[in-house]
Amino acid sequence: MTSAVLPSYDLAARTGAALSELRARTPLVQCVTNEVTSNLVANAVLAIGASPAMASVPGEAEELAGSAGAVLVNLGTPGPDQRACVEATVAAAVGAGVPWVLDPVAVGVLSVRTRLAARLLAERPTVVRGNASEVRALAGEASSGRGVDARDAVEAAASAARALAGATGGAVAVSGPVDLVTDGSATLRLAVGDPFLARVTGAGCALGGLTAAFAAVTDPVVAAVGASTALGVAAERAAVVARGPGSFVVALLDELSLLSADDVAARVGAELAVGVPA
Amino acid sequence: MTSAVLPSYDLAARTGAALSELRARTPLVQCVTNEVTSNLVANAVLAIGASPAMASVPGEAEELAGSAGAVLVNLGTPGPDQRACVEATVAAAVGAGVPWVLDPVAVGVLSVRTRLAARLLAERPTVVRGNASEVRALAGEASSGRGVDARDAVEAAASAARALAGATGGAVAVSGPVDLVTDGSATLRLAVGDPFLARVTGAGCALGGLTAAFAAVTDPVVAAVGASTALGVAAERAAVVARGPGSFVVALLDELSLLSADDVAARVGAELAVGVPA
Amino acid sequence: MTSAVLPSYDLAARTGAALSELRARTPLVQCVTNEVTSNLVANAVLAIGASPAMASVPGEAEELAGSAGAVLVNLGTPGPDQRACVEATVAAAVGAGVPWVLDPVAVGVLSVRTRLAARLLAERPTVVRGNASEVRALAGEASSGRGVDARDAVEAAASAARALAGATGGAVAVSGPVDLVTDGSATLRLAVGDPFLARVTGAGCALGGLTAAFAAVTDPVVAAVGASTALGVAAERAAVVARGPGSFVVALLDELSLLSADDVAARVGAELAVGVPA
Repeated sequence: MTSAVLPSYDLAARTGAALSELRARTPLVQCVTNEVTSNLVANAVLAIGASPAMASVPGEAEELAGSAGAVLVNLGTPGPDQRACVEATVAAAVGAGVPWVLDPVAVGVLSVRTRLAARLLAERPTVVRGNASEVRALAGEASSGRGVDARDAVEAAASAARALAGATGGAVAVSGPVDLVTDGSATLRLAVGDPFLARVTGAGCALGGLTAAFAAVTDPVVAAVGASTALGVAAERAAVVARGPGSFVVALLDELSLLSADDVAARVGAELAVGVPA
Repeated sequence: MTSAVLPSYDLAARTGAALSELRARTPLVQCVTNEVTSNLVANAVLAIGASPAMASVPGEAEELAGSAGAVLVNLGTPGPDQRACVEATVAAAVGAGVPWVLDPVAVGVLSVRTRLAARLLAERPTVVRGNASEVRALAGEASSGRGVDARDAVEAAASAARALAGATGGAVAVSGPVDLVTDGSATLRLAVGDPFLARVTGAGCALGGLTAAFAAVTDPVVAAVGASTALGVAAERAAVVARGPGSFVVALLDELSLLSADDVAARVGAELAVGVPA
Repeated sequence: MTSAVLPSYDLAARTGAALSELRARTPLVQCVTNEVTSNLVANAVLAIGASPAMASVPGEAEELAGSAGAVLVNLGTPGPDQRACVEATVAAAVGAGVPWVLDPVAVGVLSVRTRLAARLLAERPTVVRGNASEVRALAGEASSGRGVDARDAVEAAASAARALAGATGGAVAVSGPVDLVTDGSATLRLAVGDPFLARVTGAGCALGGLTAAFAAVTDPVVAAVGASTALGVAAERAAVVARGPGSFVVALLDELSLLSADDVAARVGAELAVGVPA
């Protein structure tokens, strides 16, 4: 992130402050999400301090979207009912000025969700959070993605992420060994997290939920930075005590709940200090 | 619970005996439930000693309902297929005289499930288990509920719970820091549980499953008391070893399985001894 | 397994080698599976070393099936959309020569899935993995099954399993206290596992996922033997540290990830040494 755009001390302090505010306000986060990982998403949103609603029925999801603090739309299981629900929910969020996060799971690989994602982009998601393959696909680039695996390197998606952010007017976060966040002009890198995150199902989905939780209380870039840092630091701590992927997920939720605003602020500051502006 | 209705030593002993019988008979509990928390519900039903069936497809759910020991209907994710399934399942249970439990998740806040719940009430659920906002909404009172959060105090729902129980002829349980159980005339309070229950998704849904498990072997009031006490005592024990919400859920299932009939009977007796009859 | 068909040292070595190859190749395993246990299935497939895809939407599931290493079809929640998805997915797998595993959850008890399973059998699943009641029902025998419980003894399903394998040309695995694997002529028994497996939801579903992961890299009998042994040994180790069913599932995933190819090969060899050929 070039210092002209956002001084690092400011971003660090603002990210910590966002976590404090999130816990004080416990915003309602309405999630239309992946059926495989919905339980983990709900628990991650609770663990960070927000209040998840998982209404995913047409006629109900949009009722909550307009009054929620933020909305998460995850395209991991886009059955016919859920597609109708997603479109109504996004329309309600946009109509009410509620920030919304798009998690384009496996977009670019599977056709139904790829078409849906293209339509949703026109509604300008506040934050897009995906892996490198998904972000490249969303931006219209060819990718080497295979299902939900991220085969593309994060850095290879940097220009796609910037183009996408330019088009939406929001932030775009690319997850990987190093997370990348951009608002279309400045680009920031965060070397947080642990390889265990790729060994459990739903870590990316949980990050989408955390991003929405932060987006309810702060601007898009701070939301993406806060969610990546919170998940990443919690994962590093969980990895210390985990024997394998089962105990890792358990510890990850524990650590999310134990994370302090100072922990997050300090880590963002440290990452920015070593970051290479681009 | 006024002693004229149900002497406390009797209720305590009967609740313990119900847990013993549940484990001896391992009744089949057919659950049409919330997709977000179905795994936890199934594991909670298994942990207490019953046998969960999660048939939720129209044409199948009702096949099991008629021969099950009890039926759980949770309205947390009422998509079109599930609504059809719920109505057929309840009809089959009622037709066969099988006890059934209604968990009216977020009723009063979301419109589709609120209409469905109103129709289901006419089928007289054996036990209704909800939070204060849900029970007030079911009874036709305005509430301050926000999605699945219980913003209303349990005590504020006491008269609604009694009215509801009077209408159904069954028991109504209101969950919160203090659980309340009523059959429409007597009202009992149980100060069991731990704040961790509100920090994980699906604790209320699990309680619905436990209530159905107990309802397969005992009367509605004992079923509601047994389920609340079992979950509450297990939660208190789990909280002692939990570092956060992840390890809490793991320990909660462990403790449900380790709970003895004597543990439950003793705690019911202790609660009744300090309870204020109303 | 009669030694004329498959010498035990060969089967043991081949099973260990299959686990090594699975981890080297991380095959994509496309799962159309039970909504109640999909998270556990995905995590089990990840823990053993493969890459799960959970595409379950008509129009998408079949896109992945043709290019996957193997396909899992679990009939636990056969709603209308999922049934369409299952048939298209199996057709795509068969058309592309991709091995596929059928997990006939509660077939014989519930009508919708029983009809679906009968149609799927004509597509000759590479491996059928079920409990004794399910395998007997699939083979057209009456059974004493009750929902997802296996009331029939494994041994009582031996002839049904052989008949089924003869009809499909693949392998059939019957899970229980002793697992049985047959290719229609030889029959092998593996006394692996722990009673805890029956006290958590989805252990059988996880076994289906593991079987598909192995089937992506080896022949049907070795796949069934490898999956049963991997789950069984992991369960035995998890049971040592578990306090109850909650901590058992956590430890089960940990142990699956920690299992070595030598562990599996040694156990298969030991089981075959004591086995009674039939």
